[in-house]
Amino acid sequence: MKVDHWFFENQNEDVKFGIRVSEHLASVQSKYQKIDIVKNDFFGKVLFLDGCFMLTEKDEYFYQEMITHPAMVSHPHPKNVLIIGGGDGGVAREVLKHDIERIDLVEIDEEVINLSKKFFPEIASSFDDKRVNIFNMDAFEFVNKTGNYDVIIVDSTDPIGFAASLFSEVFYEKASKLLGKEGILVTQTGSPFMNPAHIIKAIKGISANFNHYFPYLASVPTYPSGLWSYVMASNSPIFRRRKFTGKYYNDEVYDSLNKYPQFFKDIIEQK
Amino acid sequence: MKVDHWFFENQNEDVKFGIRVSEHLASVQSKYQKIDIVKNDFFGKVLFLDGCFMLTEKDEYFYQEMITHPAMVSHPHPKNVLIIGGGDGGVAREVLKHDIERIDLVEIDEEVINLSKKFFPEIASSFDDKRVNIFNMDAFEFVNKTGNYDVIIVDSTDPIGFAASLFSEVFYEKASKLLGKEGILVTQTGSPFMNPAHIIKAIKGISANFNHYFPYLASVPTYPSGLWSYVMASNSPIFRRRKFTGKYYNDEVYDSLNKYPQFFKDIIEQK
Repeated sequence: MKVDHWFFENQNEDVKFGIRVSEHLASVQSKYQKIDIVKNDFFGKVLFLDGCFMLTEKDEYFYQEMITHPAMVSHPHPKNVLIIGGGDGGVAREVLKHDIERIDLVEIDEEVINLSKKFFPEIASSFDDKRVNIFNMDAFEFVNKTGNYDVIIVDSTDPIGFAASLFSEVFYEKASKLLGKEGILVTQTGSPFMNPAHIIKAIKGISANFNHYFPYLASVPTYPSGLWSYVMASNSPIFRRRKFTGKYYNDEVYDSLNKYPQFFKDIIEQK
Repeated sequence: MKVDHWFFENQNEDVKFGIRVSEHLASVQSKYQKIDIVKNDFFGKVLFLDGCFMLTEKDEYFYQEMITHPAMVSHPHPKNVLIIGGGDGGVAREVLKHDIERIDLVEIDEEVINLSKKFFPEIASSFDDKRVNIFNMDAFEFVNKTGNYDVIIVDSTDPIGFAASLFSEVFYEKASKLLGKEGILVTQTGSPFMNPAHIIKAIKGISANFNHYFPYLASVPTYPSGLWSYVMASNSPIFRRRKFTGKYYNDEVYDSLNKYPQFFKDIIEQK
């Protein structure tokens, strides 16, 4: 008989999603957040930050692929990529599937990287690649630098606490200056069903700083509502320039990214 | 402070999804199943059958629209519709948004209809429409009749217990004989992420009895994984013939229905 020990994410004060813990592998209070890694017989190993699902071995590719590949195939020749957050290494792993030269990864919390290397070696293997440069600092400070990135991927936690600044209008302004002429920024913007205010705020900040933006949806089974939103932004038109096939992402997926369910259309148009 | 009383669905033995109960409105053991209706501050009133989420006031339109409208707009002139299950009245409500003449609704459990009328009057209002004829009997028996339906919608619970026969090859054979020449059947086929075997089995039975079939995906926040699958089947080609806009469904949604994420393509092609 299985042990009756569960780990729950409070999706809001009235809704929670839980998994049975077959093994609690790590529980660390870092300088920034609580990090838990547990094992579940259905999802495999699972990473939580401050009690929220970040990734599970079973469904991590849904999110990692969908925040990465649309932007990567929309850029004419992505060589230099900036990842903000992404301390588990999954986004870097996906970026490395393209013909790139350099990744700068700005993860504020070194502990996330260390624990991911230990418990998710297949995901964090990207950190061994010589093209990946890790900066353990606040991304809001990092974007004060000059730079000339082709793609910026904002793989951060949700806009509460220390990550809130990464969804501000000032952040988008700074980030836009780090991009080359055809550069593309992409950010996760939460569940449009649970928290539509999140994407509305992001679009406001993005549209003030970019000529073009492209919201899209994709499934993530272990994130609240199972439906997640993202926004690509650029000063050049955004469209698919290359083919790519992953485990979730493929060209068909891209080609239907701008076909929105009515409720989502209503959200992004009221911005 | 809110009461700490929760209602959980065990999505499988290692995963559960729960909502805080602000009021437990009904708990009835019918001849067929346990029926619970609870109130939650985020989702509104929620209907459970045997402990599984059937609908919530907040997200019911995702499922009701997506099982109904693709088939309805694919038929050249749907007049007679058979709904199997659908005791909450939501699918009938959506069907009535089209120019139809008659709905036969076969719900085995009269208690579901009675409780829906009492607690979900906006959803169950369709039962007051004179075009709706209710049959409280086993759908597997009902399909032994002769008939000439334009659209059959199988809005049943999952293929365990008394609903299992509704996913059998024999059922699809019988149902196909109840359809007119251009008739279309549509069925829900579960979460392709949590239970891919469900849709694989359905496609096997459907492809043995229909010349054309059309699987598709859509979001349902309160169903396991938040991602649900459906299959349309017909002996005539299936394509969109009319425009329609709902709260989730619209023409864009239909036009991207056959653009599949890679993992789903892999599932439906291995059938």
